[in-house]
Parts: sequence; structure tokens; C-alpha cells
Amino acid sequence: MRDALAGFTRFDEFQKSSGVAPNILSRRLKELVEDGLLEKVCYSTSPARFEYHLTPAGRDFRSVILALAEWGSTHFSPEGRQMQLVEIATQRPVQVQLVDSDNGQPLALEKYQMVPGPAASPMIHYRHDYLQKKHAGDHTQKFAPPSL
Amino acid sequence: MRDALAGFTRFDEFQKSSGVAPNILSRRLKELVEDGLLEKVCYSTSPARFEYHLTPAGRDFRSVILALAEWGSTHFSPEGRQMQLVEIATQRPVQVQLVDSDNGQPLALEKYQMVPGPAASPMIHYRHDYLQKKHAGDHTQKFAPPSL
Repeated sequence: MRDALAGFTRFDEFQKSSGVAPNILSRRLKELVEDGLLEKVCYSTSPARFEYHLTPAGRDFRSVILALAEWGSTHFSPEGRQMQLVEIATQRPVQVQLVDSDNGQPLALEKYQMVPGPAASPMIHYRHDYLQKKHAGDHTQKFAPPSL
Repeated sequence: MRDALAGFTRFDEFQKSSGVAPNILSRRLKELVEDGLLEKVCYSTSPARFEYHLTPAGRDFRSVILALAEWGSTHFSPEGRQMQLVEIATQRPVQVQLVDSDNGQPLALEKYQMVPGPAASPMIHYRHDYLQKKHAGDHTQKFAPPSL
């Protein structure tokens, strides 16, 4: 996915860039197509040749890669960054940040929290209630989720 | 990591919450400690009992999980969200967005780009130059990276 987001589209590009064995790469690309992140597009009919284009879901995955790259560079690159996000117009290095899209505020732990959503299972509700009590200082409860 | 970020700290909590077999969970926790995302802390000496606390790198991994959750919910949850990020004070559902921390601008593809950083290898420089030309419309070049 990193390579597809960088702009690679063809099998031999993915293969040479990643160094992954062709049979494994072929399986991975197939899975990404099945999962709806890539689509296989015919770009030549004789001989039949295909390339892999990002779907909208695939393109959106860029934000996950950017968050992961920011995290990895911050904590695990004492030798400096291998890749750096820049603003194209100025080539200014950019630090990425995750914010609340309504007000642009950073997602501070004290202010924002995950809660069960409309499709939450009983297990998720139980987990949430347990963690709320634990967070409030209740260390006596036993974690005994409803059987699934 | 999702469970540790949610607030779980103890082996049996991780085990019951994830349903992962104890030997596999034990190996995963050990790897996360070795990788510097969790630390093993003794909370009782007789009997000796340990719990797992997030390190600073582990806590920061939250932004990757949030980006992944936003992406997954947007593209793969026709039935609605299992978990929803909310602002604690108001319980308002929050949509997360990745921005340029200097000016709060969203990271539009046309304006922001990954370029090789100070620690980039020759392979990374080659990849970047190749993709720049491909992006500019040069479809004649062959992808032949320097041997590693």
C-alpha cells in the first residue's frame, strides 16, 4: 500500500521496489483488490497487461500511512528521516497532527475519548463500562465479559 | 495495542478482551516490551505480579489507531460504528483529520508530498526520481533500481 500510494501501479514496479517474492506479491495484490483498496485495470489488450490503481478507500489510506510515518520517525529514527513530508510549493518540512475536524483542536487524551458507537456489541459496552470504572480508580472489579 | 491504549494493563484483561491464546498473547506482549511500546511494571511482590504500561512511544501510537479507526469506519462500516470518538465535555461525535501542524491545513495530495529525508538510501532517492518522472507523464522509463 505504501508503494501504491507513492505512485507505483505495475507489478514489476512493486516487485523491484519491495523485493518481495513474485508469488507472495501476487497474493497480496489480489487481497488488496478483494478488500477494495486497489482495482486491477487493463491498460493494454495485446498482450493483455494490467496495472493496479487506488480506489477511493485506498487513496484515503494515505492518512493512516502518514500517521504511522510521523509516529515511526518521531520514536524510531535516531539517524533522521528516510522520507519527509513537505509542502510542495515551499519544500518546507511538515509535521502532521491529528485534530478534531470541527474546531482544529488537537485530540488531547483528557478531552477526547472513544465510546461505544451505534453498532457496538454487548462485549464492547461491557469493556467500556469496565474501563470507565477502572479509570475512576476502582481496582476491585474483575474483568468478566459476557460470553460471546 | 488497541487494548493497552483503551486502558487495559493486566494479562488477564488482555486475554479475555482479545480472546487470543495465552502463549500467543504472552509473545506479543514481550515483543511490544522489546520494541519499546509497553513496559512491564511490578505491582505486587508476593506473589510477584506485573502489569503493562504504555511508554511515551506507546501512548503516541494512539494517533495511528485513531487514523486507522477513522479510515475503517468511513469505508468499511455500513452498519455504523462500533466505537466513536467523542469530545468528553459535550459527548459530541468527532471526526478526526490529519493536518499540517504549522497552519492547520488539511494535507491535500496536490499540495503535500513525501520526499527523501536526510537518512534516505540510494534506493529511496532512485524511487523518488522515478516516480517524479512517471507522475510528470514519462511512461517510457524502466524501473531499474540500483542493486542493494
